[in-house]
Amino acid sequence: MATMPLLTDADAPPEARAVFDDICATRRTDYVNNFWRAMANDPEAMAAAWDRLKQVMGPGALNPLVKEMLYIAVSVANGCEYCVHSHTASAKAKGMSDAMHRELLSVIAMAAQTNALATAMQVPVDDRFKA
Amino acid sequence: MATMPLLTDADAPPEARAVFDDICATRRTDYVNNFWRAMANDPEAMAAAWDRLKQVMGPGALNPLVKEMLYIAVSVANGCEYCVHSHTASAKAKGMSDAMHRELLSVIAMAAQTNALATAMQVPVDDRFKA
Amino acid sequence: MATMPLLTDADAPPEARAVFDDICATRRTDYVNNFWRAMANDPEAMAAAWDRLKQVMGPGALNPLVKEMLYIAVSVANGCEYCVHSHTASAKAKGMSDAMHRELLSVIAMAAQTNALATAMQVPVDDRFKA
Amino acid sequence: MATMPLLTDADAPPEARAVFDDICATRRTDYVNNFWRAMANDPEAMAAAWDRLKQVMGPGALNPLVKEMLYIAVSVANGCEYCVHSHTASAKAKGMSDAMHRELLSVIAMAAQTNALATAMQVPVDDRFKA
Amino acid sequence: MATMPLLTDADAPPEARAVFDDICATRRTDYVNNFWRAMANDPEAMAAAWDRLKQVMGPGALNPLVKEMLYIAVSVANGCEYCVHSHTASAKAKGMSDAMHRELLSVIAMAAQTNALATAMQVPVDDRFKA
Amino acid sequence: MATMPLLTDADAPPEARAVFDDICATRRTDYVNNFWRAMANDPEAMAAAWDRLKQVMGPGALNPLVKEMLYIAVSVANGCEYCVHSHTASAKAKGMSDAMHRELLSVIAMAAQTNALATAMQVPVDDRFKA
Repeated sequence: MATMPLLTDADAPPEARAVFDDICATRRTDYVNNFWRAMANDPEAMAAAWDRLKQVMGPGALNPLVKEMLYIAVSVANGCEYCVHSHTASAKAKGMSDAMHRELLSVIAMAAQTNALATAMQVPVDDRFKA
Repeated sequence: MATMPLLTDADAPPEARAVFDDICATRRTDYVNNFWRAMANDPEAMAAAWDRLKQVMGPGALNPLVKEMLYIAVSVANGCEYCVHSHTASAKAKGMSDAMHRELLSVIAMAAQTNALATAMQVPVDDRFKA
Repeated sequence: MATMPLLTDADAPPEARAVFDDICATRRTDYVNNFWRAMANDPEAMAAAWDRLKQVMGPGALNPLVKEMLYIAVSVANGCEYCVHSHTASAKAKGMSDAMHRELLSVIAMAAQTNALATAMQVPVDDRFKA
Repeated sequence: MATMPLLTDADAPPEARAVFDDICATRRTDYVNNFWRAMANDPEAMAAAWDRLKQVMGPGALNPLVKEMLYIAVSVANGCEYCVHSHTASAKAKGMSDAMHRELLSVIAMAAQTNALATAMQVPVDDRFKA
Repeated sequence: MATMPLLTDADAPPEARAVFDDICATRRTDYVNNFWRAMANDPEAMAAAWDRLKQVMGPGALNPLVKEMLYIAVSVANGCEYCVHSHTASAKAKGMSDAMHRELLSVIAMAAQTNALATAMQVPVDDRFKA
Repeated sequence: MATMPLLTDADAPPEARAVFDDICATRRTDYVNNFWRAMANDPEAMAAAWDRLKQVMGPGALNPLVKEMLYIAVSVANGCEYCVHSHTASAKAKGMSDAMHRELLSVIAMAAQTNALATAMQVPVDDRFKA
């Protein structure tokens, strides 16, 4: 169904299996989700994406749960079905409550709405916002 | 330049001026930004948007700064120039540090990248994400 | 500023000038807008687009003004600044009143909002809508 | 399958059931579609969206069928599968003929095409469109 | 499941069957894919799209395989599931190797990422790029 | 005007200046474009993006000019003004002729059009495309 085969542990090249192992170790799971099984067809791209993802999504000035919710927001706006499902699951695993989920969706909906209005009205950016 | 005139206080109908007043009171400012001056052409739509925005963006299970960053994430994905500028300014006013801003952008960039990859590979959603 | 030069009547090749003439005759104007002056760099593509546009946007089961408003709706959702400006001007020229313009924007904003919510919630399509 | 459970009449909180009732009364049906069964998880957001939707989509300067077609246009451009299905069904229920449906699709396709061309060529907005 | 019925050879009007025949002759196949069976409901729009497609996708300054990969790139960015599948199949049929497919995806992912960053940072266009 | 300051050589931290140097060396120029001057505010993200960009855009199974045109295609579909300008300039610098540019735009426009139609008609993917 995917345009790239989903590689099993047996089919994946060694460099990809090494990333599978790091995914499992980092997430404390033995489950590798379909996105990475598809990415395994290009071990170099896979390693680059996974390494950057680990850096970006870990704790920092923003906490990992906030980052997962930001990921959902972008994925919804980009209409990525896979990403909405996988990052909603991740956010719940990281502690997103039902109340947080509801507020997340309300913010996304509000932004989608005013984005459309600002574009439809072609509102010029206020000088003070450019400073 | 906008497709709707930006209404001054003098030009705005009374229902719109009432919303201007509430915007200034809520934000503790005397500045009404261009988006609302354009929305003032339709006082009913303006009041509906402003009332919902106040409810949605206030404190709750998520704090107002997180909500502003979610707003930026959606606005970037939707390519809304006005909204990126105005909500980046709001987020800074609510305490977004430079480090938070940098991490926000890295999460947005990461999500945009894997959204594209998941769509290009048409990865099927894992059963466990659908539960 | 454009990535293609905007061709004057003098610079445009004869096939493009013929389209300029047809644009002016069809619209009863002597003004050719920048989009077509850019398209003139590829007279074949220009003629194909113009011929199809004339067929599509003329009267039929839907009237030309409704078609212009549909065009605006798509252009807003696609974030095309040029198209929002040019088709808002066209719609006004074809009789879009201020009240129609306001309602158009409210429908666009509503749709943007529920589009985002349906995607965020990954709502399955009702069987009865598939019939 | 959805990221929010679809609530039955029995599971929905009273405030959501009241919206279910108003949906059925307004549409003269006993069927509540999946979108609202998902929205029922957040009765406040649900009521805000439904109230605004009723105001926006009712008769006014534009008739309800034109509004449904505008909704489809936005939903297509935003790539919302659920919304394309549900609003195409609504538009047919409100009298969209096959001929109107065909013309709607041709306008959407035309707009998508020229949106892309205007963006690719970065055509500057004509001064006269800014007036 | 589609919002337009997929017409069989028997159901399609003669003008649409003529396009079916031309599709089969051009592609040296006896298979007409679902997109064209849906388009057959509007023979005029179908003929216009098919004629333009033949012109655009044939050999020229760019070869047909490069054009298929460009088609995939746009389809991914627009989130069109059908188009990603159908044009990936076409590109493979025209000789896209696994290595080319992998590089195509990496370019798409890279562009999605820097598109988001440029928009989030609202980077002004360098004067030298406007020349 | 940007939401991140454009850093001069003097203002940029040493890690960012090192990337500036590599950009100039790789491109055989002494000009660093605005995108990288904005990215310099986050030297780690900047280095990650630049390193991956060099890998992805270099020669491989696809040549660098084809890759630039793919980049343009994605940037147009995502509506990124900066990226359309900068990658059109890059493509020209790498040998994109006027004829190639015209064909590129026609493919992008064709894809945008059939993407919209496939989405509007919700065409199911042919079984043979899933193999």
